Amino acid sequence: MLGQRAAAVGRFWKHKRHFNSLASTGSEYSREDHEQSYYKYAYIAGAAAVGMLGVQQFMRTAKLDHAKEEKNFKKLANLPMYAQEEVKKHGKDADRIWVTYKDGVYDVTDFISMHPGGDKILLAAGAAVDPFWALYSQHKTAEVLEILEGYRIGRLDVKDVPKAEPDAFSNDPERHPALLVRNAKPFNAESPPSLLTDHFYTPNELFFVRNHLPVPDIKTEDHRLTIETMNGKTIDLSVDELKKKYKSYTIGSVIQCAGNRRADMNQYKKVQGLMWEGTAISNAEWTGVRLRDILADAGIDVFDEKIKHVHFEGCDVDPTGTPYGASIPMEKARGNEVIVAYHMNGVDIPRDHGAPLRVIVPGNVGARQVKWLRKIIVSEKESDSHWQQKDYRAFSPAVNIGDELKWDTVPSIQEYPVQCAICTPAPNTKVDRDDGTVDISGYAWSGGGRGIIRIEISVDGGETWSSCEMEQEEKQDKEHMYAWTLFRTEVKIPPGVKEFNIIAKAVDRSYNTQPETASGIWNVRGLIHNAWHRVPIIVKD
Amino acid sequence: MLGQRAAAVGRFWKHKRHFNSLASTGSEYSREDHEQSYYKYAYIAGAAAVGMLGVQQFMRTAKLDHAKEEKNFKKLANLPMYAQEEVKKHGKDADRIWVTYKDGVYDVTDFISMHPGGDKILLAAGAAVDPFWALYSQHKTAEVLEILEGYRIGRLDVKDVPKAEPDAFSNDPERHPALLVRNAKPFNAESPPSLLTDHFYTPNELFFVRNHLPVPDIKTEDHRLTIETMNGKTIDLSVDELKKKYKSYTIGSVIQCAGNRRADMNQYKKVQGLMWEGTAISNAEWTGVRLRDILADAGIDVFDEKIKHVHFEGCDVDPTGTPYGASIPMEKARGNEVIVAYHMNGVDIPRDHGAPLRVIVPGNVGARQVKWLRKIIVSEKESDSHWQQKDYRAFSPAVNIGDELKWDTVPSIQEYPVQCAICTPAPNTKVDRDDGTVDISGYAWSGGGRGIIRIEISVDGGETWSSCEMEQEEKQDKEHMYAWTLFRTEVKIPPGVKEFNIIAKAVDRSYNTQPETASGIWNVRGLIHNAWHRVPIIVKD
Repeated sequence: MLGQRAAAVGRFWKHKRHFNSLASTGSEYSREDHEQSYYKYAYIAGAAAVGMLGVQQFMRTAKLDHAKEEKNFKKLANLPMYAQEEVKKHGKDADRIWVTYKDGVYDVTDFISMHPGGDKILLAAGAAVDPFWALYSQHKTAEVLEILEGYRIGRLDVKDVPKAEPDAFSNDPERHPALLVRNAKPFNAESPPSLLTDHFYTPNELFFVRNHLPVPDIKTEDHRLTIETMNGKTIDLSVDELKKKYKSYTIGSVIQCAGNRRADMNQYKKVQGLMWEGTAISNAEWTGVRLRDILADAGIDVFDEKIKHVHFEGCDVDPTGTPYGASIPMEKARGNEVIVAYHMNGVDIPRDHGAPLRVIVPGNVGARQVKWLRKIIVSEKESDSHWQQKDYRAFSPAVNIGDELKWDTVPSIQEYPVQCAICTPAPNTKVDRDDGTVDISGYAWSGGGRGIIRIEISVDGGETWSSCEMEQEEKQDKEHMYAWTLFRTEVKIPPGVKEFNIIAKAVDRSYNTQPETASGIWNVRGLIHNAWHRVPIIVKD
Repeated sequence: MLGQRAAAVGRFWKHKRHFNSLASTGSEYSREDHEQSYYKYAYIAGAAAVGMLGVQQFMRTAKLDHAKEEKNFKKLANLPMYAQEEVKKHGKDADRIWVTYKDGVYDVTDFISMHPGGDKILLAAGAAVDPFWALYSQHKTAEVLEILEGYRIGRLDVKDVPKAEPDAFSNDPERHPALLVRNAKPFNAESPPSLLTDHFYTPNELFFVRNHLPVPDIKTEDHRLTIETMNGKTIDLSVDELKKKYKSYTIGSVIQCAGNRRADMNQYKKVQGLMWEGTAISNAEWTGVRLRDILADAGIDVFDEKIKHVHFEGCDVDPTGTPYGASIPMEKARGNEVIVAYHMNGVDIPRDHGAPLRVIVPGNVGARQVKWLRKIIVSEKESDSHWQQKDYRAFSPAVNIGDELKWDTVPSIQEYPVQCAICTPAPNTKVDRDDGTVDISGYAWSGGGRGIIRIEISVDGGETWSSCEMEQEEKQDKEHMYAWTLFRTEVKIPPGVKEFNIIAKAVDRSYNTQPETASGIWNVRGLIHNAWHRVPIIVKD
């Protein structure tokens, strides 16, 4: 049954939307109700208003819409009304799981395994999703409302409809206007590509922001970092104590979102997630103390074979009080490069980037570099956190949207593969043929400290290549290169073409390279897109 | 001048061969001489012998060949004769570098920077290349003779022509007849692909062989391993002492030649080197002692920051007495996984594979896993060995055959990128449509201990993929996987096609993937070809 339903949803996502009109008007039944009437009037008014020539076409369209709406209207009108206490019986341990959203009641049992956010959906089982969606505003799209509507079983008694939530994001910090906002709440924004390669270390104001929840507002002097050992013993430190107790280290290190370049993968074939272009990545100098030193000081033997993972907890919490969390293997945690940072480019870490403490895990994906760090736990197991277990794992291209996502069959992303992208010129830039050449800039980076050994550019689809000049951090060797590589070059405008693609790609120290297209790496969540970056250019004669 | 000459040679290699007839008859001037006469007689005899119908065509062809030969003949007949003592004046420090081969004298000054073997060519400066070519028989191809002939300046006095060298390879061991020999002397042979995936650990007899020189014949009881410290102190150990002194470890680890799948890259665009197909790779269980333990016992602090590299020397030496050598970074050398092995799959390492001692560097390319190990040296620098400095480095696709190879601009290959290939069915296998499916087997592996997280197959050019069942070593986790992954699956024969490609590709623990084609990774030496492996299949109706 679950399988059949999954297949149906798969078809539903992939093919035409049969709830299209519902989605475009929101899923609220009451509004829907009004809009049904609106459609009826519009039909008559419209038919009268348009000239004779347009009437036939208008009527054909309107009739179809009308028929569909009418059907939905009848279907919805026949659905029962439920009180909150009835909904509550369908909590996470019930046979059928119900949730409410505004005045709608939904049986989402068959959707749970397909939920892009995994079983976090169960947090709202037998209750309203509204307070969760207030934090995860990515749900508030026509598409998601449309999916939800497919599971509607009734209306919620008007007395139980939740009041509008207060804005949990109202205390978020001010941001630089140049950031390209991909989602306002929680705040997610890219660095402006036109400015990114101007600075080897991205200015804090322009550093991309990837928040999962509202930004905590922490008084540094009140903040405590707790370290929990295997036998449950805990110690804690103020930020000042941490600074005084341990030697400080500064390291240039990239943070990249696993969803960077997702929009590009989405062009190949539709994926789920925030549509990041190519600058959900930045590079900064981080100053802090070695995680290893803190662990050792807490009495933890960093070579203890029973300790396999180190967990991190942030101060950013969801409505249930669950903090953002992640973990990294102990082998990585005890390395020279992992620090608990308090400075970002020489100043206190700004609020958006984890003030007052953020763990920096050079060479790994951004999702493990927990901001607003409040707790470190050593463990035999990976973190149970949703973001460790049910997200940030890239599936096979054989798994499609709507298929059940078997999270435990794919490992959590830790080290990143080799990446490269052009920042300037922007796609579809118009150039004058008389200029002869086009200036290019961009970045490359690879995970695990694998330095970039070269970057190559092609303007003939990969037939021939030229190498680029590279800017790298001199302190870092090719085996321990956590900062990025910037590149700058110029290419000749190919003769006789009206448009052409600039392609950039890189090679890392282990001679890993990038795939040509998304064909072999496409994955349902649109993670780790690192195919050759192509920027189309238009030539004006 | 050098640049111009380089460009000319580039054109020469890339385009038509103007010395083609010379090449096809060998480069020996004396034989050439005879063959000129032969051509003259053949022309007359042939014209008389063939019927009237064929005469015109024959004459046209014969005339062209004849004209070319005649020109070369005249050119060569006019060249001066030199005595050995005259040649000797053009040694490695002279303005112009001469070498002889059989009775030819060649000024190779302008070729040195293009020599695929780097400046090893200077070892023969002012003398005969014959004793070197006796060991590096890859020179004895029409192509190389042709290149050499382009540099001819004269004939060597017949009294100075070297006698034929004794066969340095006559004491090489017996080999299994199933090995696919790519070069007989030195012996280089692939594992038979049809048998390779039958065994998770490749039987020693079928393990691919990559020798650079004749196989040393070492009495285990006489062998000494010397360890040289930074202050020049040396200690040495017999094999027995080594076994007794240190704890033994067993590890499953792949050895792969950097040239594996070169023939495949050569299909994309011509490359230089031995034409390995896809099975210059095998997997064995190696038993030995940790390199770290030996170093520590020799009084070396493996965390000494002055020590950056560990060098290895083999007992296989070239005519100058120079041994095969390579080095690895100290950071790798002190790892748990690096061992000095004496057993291969539970028995003494066979002669072809390094008896009695071979260093096993799991996760790295084969070239660093020195066989017949006789010396270990710690150093601030990489090994000076030709094979570390002037080979086993993959250039950019922007560097073409004939371009100067600036070896110091590319790092030596150490860790290998992700690799995957199909072993069965063989290319162009004919299958019956009625069978419905085709069984597939193959291997995947990645460097640096990055385990394979999945392998995918496509029969529609990469449009859709299916995942394969994988066989892995249970003792190794995905972060420390040095043994390979075998896969087995079956694919449906696509309807309505007369032929199709099976494509296989893999993803490693750091989510590194393979490029679709050689387009972005092509390099002049044909190293590290890891594009998607394609096996064409013919469908019989």
